[in-house]
Amino acid sequence: MSLDYLKLNDANSVRVPAENLHKQVSVILQGVGTPQAHAEITAEILLSSSLRGVETHGVGNVVRYSESIEDGTYVVPQTVEVISETETTVLLSCGNGLGFVAAHQGMEMSIAKAKKFGVGMSTIRDGHHIGMVGYYPMMAVAEDMIGMAMTNASRSVRPALGARPRVGTNPIAFGAPAGDERDFIFDMATSTIASGKIALAKRLGVQMPVGWAVTAEGEPLTEPRGDRGEDWAMNPLGGTREQGSHKGYGLGLMVDILCGVLSGGGFGMQLAGGENMTWTMAIDIAKFRDVDDFKAMMDDMIRDLHSTPTLPGEDRVLVAGDPEADFEDDRLANGVPVENSQYDEIRARAMALGVEVFI
Amino acid sequence: MSLDYLKLNDANSVRVPAENLHKQVSVILQGVGTPQAHAEITAEILLSSSLRGVETHGVGNVVRYSESIEDGTYVVPQTVEVISETETTVLLSCGNGLGFVAAHQGMEMSIAKAKKFGVGMSTIRDGHHIGMVGYYPMMAVAEDMIGMAMTNASRSVRPALGARPRVGTNPIAFGAPAGDERDFIFDMATSTIASGKIALAKRLGVQMPVGWAVTAEGEPLTEPRGDRGEDWAMNPLGGTREQGSHKGYGLGLMVDILCGVLSGGGFGMQLAGGENMTWTMAIDIAKFRDVDDFKAMMDDMIRDLHSTPTLPGEDRVLVAGDPEADFEDDRLANGVPVENSQYDEIRARAMALGVEVFI
Repeated sequence: MSLDYLKLNDANSVRVPAENLHKQVSVILQGVGTPQAHAEITAEILLSSSLRGVETHGVGNVVRYSESIEDGTYVVPQTVEVISETETTVLLSCGNGLGFVAAHQGMEMSIAKAKKFGVGMSTIRDGHHIGMVGYYPMMAVAEDMIGMAMTNASRSVRPALGARPRVGTNPIAFGAPAGDERDFIFDMATSTIASGKIALAKRLGVQMPVGWAVTAEGEPLTEPRGDRGEDWAMNPLGGTREQGSHKGYGLGLMVDILCGVLSGGGFGMQLAGGENMTWTMAIDIAKFRDVDDFKAMMDDMIRDLHSTPTLPGEDRVLVAGDPEADFEDDRLANGVPVENSQYDEIRARAMALGVEVFI
Repeated sequence: MSLDYLKLNDANSVRVPAENLHKQVSVILQGVGTPQAHAEITAEILLSSSLRGVETHGVGNVVRYSESIEDGTYVVPQTVEVISETETTVLLSCGNGLGFVAAHQGMEMSIAKAKKFGVGMSTIRDGHHIGMVGYYPMMAVAEDMIGMAMTNASRSVRPALGARPRVGTNPIAFGAPAGDERDFIFDMATSTIASGKIALAKRLGVQMPVGWAVTAEGEPLTEPRGDRGEDWAMNPLGGTREQGSHKGYGLGLMVDILCGVLSGGGFGMQLAGGENMTWTMAIDIAKFRDVDDFKAMMDDMIRDLHSTPTLPGEDRVLVAGDPEADFEDDRLANGVPVENSQYDEIRARAMALGVEVFI
């Protein structure tokens, strides 16, 4: 339970009802000129992250998004433009606006194309942060499809054998529907750890384990850094050569290729902080086989995994999406914990903008 | 250079011209009843692995494939059957024959569908070993497409937090074409290490590093095992909870879902040793953007990565496909090294079958 110190609790956070948080995020975004429809999409995705325990991508980020809109980094209102399109593919421009809006549209178009032709795929340029990448496959799963999404980012992770940041944390998300069991919802950074976890460790004042980051000399770095620069880098998943660092590195480049090169928006080394290109895919299960049979096999697989004997000291074997679903059940019933400092920031931001305070 | 002891050299192998090896593999397969067209496909893929330095998936395996054909484990001649098909999707049955043959057809169909509609996807049931999974994306790359392939396998890897084998090593391969630089060809097992590397360590009589495998009690296992069973398991990529073992585990299940559940052929826990279900995808780059522009951006990315300062003691930063391309250049010119014991086995097998000996 080594990461427990990164979790929110009654001492470091305030519980807020989900619907109030949704309203709060939406009105703050509208307060800086975001059209209501775009603000609602963004609020829904940010709230989903907070509900599912993905604090780093949750509602607390609305403050910086609203600042990016105000200072012109994000173009709002934005126009999401179709640059090229075929039966199964679409290249979108996010119009340098809210990444959420274009990623949501990209997955909606992927789903519509998959319904007609079996598979749908979007890649999106001129984009920004899309939040929790696992949200988008969930849109496909709700339609009895397999969903997949990736997003690239500016450089923070070293290549295998390299000692400088060259690749983003470039997450991969994948979802597939189950029947009686919970849906399989998988969302991973291709670095050893998500960058938000390092920022959270810094805010909470705790050290990082060896293996998350290195200095420019390749020595382990355990003091969390809040900055980005050439003098330190996160490790790719796998960590060392012998344990497979070339795998995390290769996966990160796969994300760069599908998001950045296929869209033309740029790979990690070409991106500024806050720029993110995105890729989505939907696969209509029914085009391959009976959906109920698919789900029954998913259930069998998930049950077999849950019944696996654990490593010493562990409670149970989990399947991707289990911890998030546990968080969601609790938080829908008992409110969503918002970190104390973020709670104050969100309220202050709402008051400064003169919009209603819901939390 | 910790894995150098796993490499072939003049003392432990014999160099053979590539074309002789191709002929040798093909005639051995034909000698046990494989149709010539199927034998040629299989020989090409096995030779490609040996040329590219992927010894574990190379020509040496022809002996056991020919035995599996003789004892009826593989149904040969096989019929690859289309079970369901749409504009962009196809579900194939491998007919319990050579996995190579159906995987090759699956990728050919994915490419043809992508040419028409942008994306093509196949999933394949009733299958066996497909060899080096990275071969199949290379077929798409040769057509100026992005290619992807995965294959699942019987259980050998533990889930994160679990202490028994439940997931296969389930590799993921991805390829994208570059312009002046070498193509990006990425091929990884979702375990810390490919199972063939453990078998190779055992054959060479060397210990495994801590992090590759555990006992049923969750203790590190360093003595390579040749068997499969409940009393030891390989680690998922990431190794430990803190270093991201849930990521390798989740990727392994993604492979199980696309290969085993989407096809209906079965996930890892349902498969016997030697059964493998397969998934392929091709993406036509030209449907999104100009192919030359795509390749020029790939070149920029690859050059930036190659120029990254290294960790202390490392020569250069590599990009996926670099080591394999180096091997291929050398081996096309100077012959393909075949491990001494495998060289003897292949010759003995050819003589026993009464087919021509080319090596």
